[in-house]
Amino acid sequence: MIKVFKVLKLKVKVGQETKEYKSIWWDKEGVVNAIDQRKLPFSFEIFKARNLDDICFTIKNMVVRGAPLIGVTAAYGLVLTSQTLEKKKDEEFINGLVIAGNKLSKTRPTAADLDNAISEIMSIVYTNNTPKENIDNIKCESDILTQTVIDECLAIGKIGNQLITQDISNIMTICNAGALATVDIGTALAPIRKAKESGKELNIYVNETRPRMQGARLTAWELYNEDISHQIITDNSAGYFFKKGMIDMVLVGADRIVRNGDTANKIGTYILSLLCKEHSIPFYVAAPLSTFDLKTKTGNDIIIEERDGLEVRSAMSVNDEQDKIAKRRIIHHPHSPNLNPAFDITPAENITGIITPKGLLKNPFEKEIFQMLKT
Amino acid sequence: MIKVFKVLKLKVKVGQETKEYKSIWWDKEGVVNAIDQRKLPFSFEIFKARNLDDICFTIKNMVVRGAPLIGVTAAYGLVLTSQTLEKKKDEEFINGLVIAGNKLSKTRPTAADLDNAISEIMSIVYTNNTPKENIDNIKCESDILTQTVIDECLAIGKIGNQLITQDISNIMTICNAGALATVDIGTALAPIRKAKESGKELNIYVNETRPRMQGARLTAWELYNEDISHQIITDNSAGYFFKKGMIDMVLVGADRIVRNGDTANKIGTYILSLLCKEHSIPFYVAAPLSTFDLKTKTGNDIIIEERDGLEVRSAMSVNDEQDKIAKRRIIHHPHSPNLNPAFDITPAENITGIITPKGLLKNPFEKEIFQMLKT
Repeated sequence: MIKVFKVLKLKVKVGQETKEYKSIWWDKEGVVNAIDQRKLPFSFEIFKARNLDDICFTIKNMVVRGAPLIGVTAAYGLVLTSQTLEKKKDEEFINGLVIAGNKLSKTRPTAADLDNAISEIMSIVYTNNTPKENIDNIKCESDILTQTVIDECLAIGKIGNQLITQDISNIMTICNAGALATVDIGTALAPIRKAKESGKELNIYVNETRPRMQGARLTAWELYNEDISHQIITDNSAGYFFKKGMIDMVLVGADRIVRNGDTANKIGTYILSLLCKEHSIPFYVAAPLSTFDLKTKTGNDIIIEERDGLEVRSAMSVNDEQDKIAKRRIIHHPHSPNLNPAFDITPAENITGIITPKGLLKNPFEKEIFQMLKT
Repeated sequence: MIKVFKVLKLKVKVGQETKEYKSIWWDKEGVVNAIDQRKLPFSFEIFKARNLDDICFTIKNMVVRGAPLIGVTAAYGLVLTSQTLEKKKDEEFINGLVIAGNKLSKTRPTAADLDNAISEIMSIVYTNNTPKENIDNIKCESDILTQTVIDECLAIGKIGNQLITQDISNIMTICNAGALATVDIGTALAPIRKAKESGKELNIYVNETRPRMQGARLTAWELYNEDISHQIITDNSAGYFFKKGMIDMVLVGADRIVRNGDTANKIGTYILSLLCKEHSIPFYVAAPLSTFDLKTKTGNDIIIEERDGLEVRSAMSVNDEQDKIAKRRIIHHPHSPNLNPAFDITPAENITGIITPKGLLKNPFEKEIFQMLKT
C-alpha cells in the first residue's frame, strides 16, 4: 500500500519556471532521494541513498536535517535495511533491524523524532510475519509516517496562521523549520506560508544561524522561492531589532520538547526567548507530535549534541574581495580552540505557546502535553 | 617634543620568537604603519599610510578598528595632512585641516573617539602660529594623544584587575577590545592581561562576533599570543554557556558612552547584557575617557553605522571539506537581502559598572560620568 501524496509545497525556482519538490522521496528504483541541504542555496543537487550507510551519512553529515525530516529519513533507512534481509531467517531479520536501529539512533542525539520514528517502525515488526510481510509493512509504515508529518505540518500551518493577527507583520525565526526540515510546508514556516496564502503581508527576519548558517542558506532560500519578504540578519544583531521595536513575534521549530515544555532547538533559540521576555513579544514553538518526548522530565535531562569545532573555525570570513585572500579566509583558525554546542534549551516559562497539529498548547504545558499525546 | 613610549604589550609569536608591536606607529620616513587587521590571524602584514586618503581608507575599510585606535589614526591623518600644507598661507592651512577633519569624521559614525580626537587636534591650531609651528604642535599633540590612550589602558587594566576576584575564572567578551583596538594592552582585555600577570588563572569565552569575526580573528589571536586560555564560540551560543553556569563575568569595550551611561558597542553586546541580567552575572564596560560623549543624552540619539550587507552575505560557510565546494561557499548569497547594523545600544541599567582610567563608575552613571570628565 503506497499512499498518494498531496501536491507538495517546496517550490524551487529554476530559471523562469517554479517546480515543486519534496525534501525526500523514493524513486522508481527504490532509492531514497533527498535534496542535498549542504549545497543550498548555491546549487540544487539530489543525494541518492541506496543503503543504511548512505542514510546514516545523510543524517550525520546534514545532507538532511531538521527533527521531523531526520525521523522520516531514519524510517527510510530501516526500509532499505529490511530489503537486504529478505532472505534471512525471522530472528536474523529482526536482529538486523535492531542493529540498524541502534546505528541510526546514534547518528544525532538531540532530535526526539529520530528515536520516535525508529520505535514506531520497530513496533510493527512481528516474528510471526515472514520477512517479506514485514518488509511490506515497514515500507507502508514509513509512508504513513511521512504522510503524518505532512498532514501535521498542514495542521500546524492552519492553527499557527490564526495567531498571525492584523498587528503581526514582522516575524523572526532561526535556523530552518521549513519544508526542508520536514517533508513539506514546515513547522515554524507553515503558519507563515499559510498567512501568505491568505493574503497577509509579512516580513521575516531570518537569523543566519551560525555555524552552519541554516537560516541564511535554507530558510532564506525557501522564502525566496515562495516570494515572501525577508531579511537575513546575523544572530548577534537580533537584539538590535527587538530594541528598535521591529519584531512582533518569534516563531521557531523544535528538536525535542520534554514533559514540562522545556524545548531543545537550534543554538541561539534560548537568546531569542529571552529577548521576547524582555520586550514582551510572543514566542511560539511549532512542532509535530513526533518531537514530543514524555520520557524526559525537564530540559536539564536533554543530551545536547556537540559538533566538530571545525564548523566554527572554518568560517573566518571577512569581506575584502579586492584583497583576493578568499582562499585564506576559509582555512581553519590557526591557533585557537573552540566549542560548538548545536542546540540549547528554552525553558518552558519563556514560551508563549506551542503550536501542534492538535491545537495550541498554553503554559503551563505539562498537563496539556500529556493530554494531547494520550488522546 | 616626541615622547618615548613605554615597552609595549602587543606580543606576536613569530616562529619560536615573541616580538612586541604597537597596533600603529610612525616609521623613520614619517609614514604611518598599522597592523593590517583584515588579514589576521592568517597573516601578519603591515599597512603603510602615506596620506589622508590612505588614513581614511584604513578606518573605513577596517585595516584599523576599535574606537580608541580609530581616534589615534584620525589624529595621524591630520598630522599627514598638515605636512602637505606647510607652504600654504595661514588661512589655507587651517581650511585644509578643517576639510581633512570633516573627511575623517565621515569615515565611521559610531565611535566617539574619532570626533574627540579630531576636536582635540583642531583645538591647538592657532592662526597666529606659522604653519611650521602648527605642524610641530599637531605632531606633538597626536603623540600625547597616543600616549594618553596607552596610559589610560594601563590604568583600566589595574582597576579592572581588582574586579577579577577569586570567584571569577570564566570571563566572556565580544569583538576585540584589546591591544589591536587601542595602541597597546587594550580596554576590556587590559584587566585580563593584568590578571594573567598577577598569576590568576582565567579562561576567556570569545564570541566570534559576526559578521567580521573580530572576536574569532583578533581577540583569539591576542589571547593566543599571550598564552591566555580561551575558547571561540558562536555568538548565538552565548546563552548556552550562561545557562550551564559557566560564565562569571562579561567584560566588553565601548564605541560611545553617552551622558546617562547608555553604551554603543559591537552588535551583540546588548544580548550579552541581557544574559547577565537574567543570570545575575556582572556586566562591565571598559573605556578610556575619549569614548565618553557628554553631548549626547541617551542611547537613542546615537547614530548606528549600517555596513555593507556583503559582509553578512559573503560568509555562507559550511564545513564539508571533502566536497571541494570551498569557492562556492564564499560567493554572495544569490537571492536574499540582508541587514547589517554594526553596533547596538546597551542600556545603562544593564551595566554593573564602567571601568575607566579614573576609577570604576557605578550605576546611576550620569553624575559619575559628569564629575569624572570635569575633574
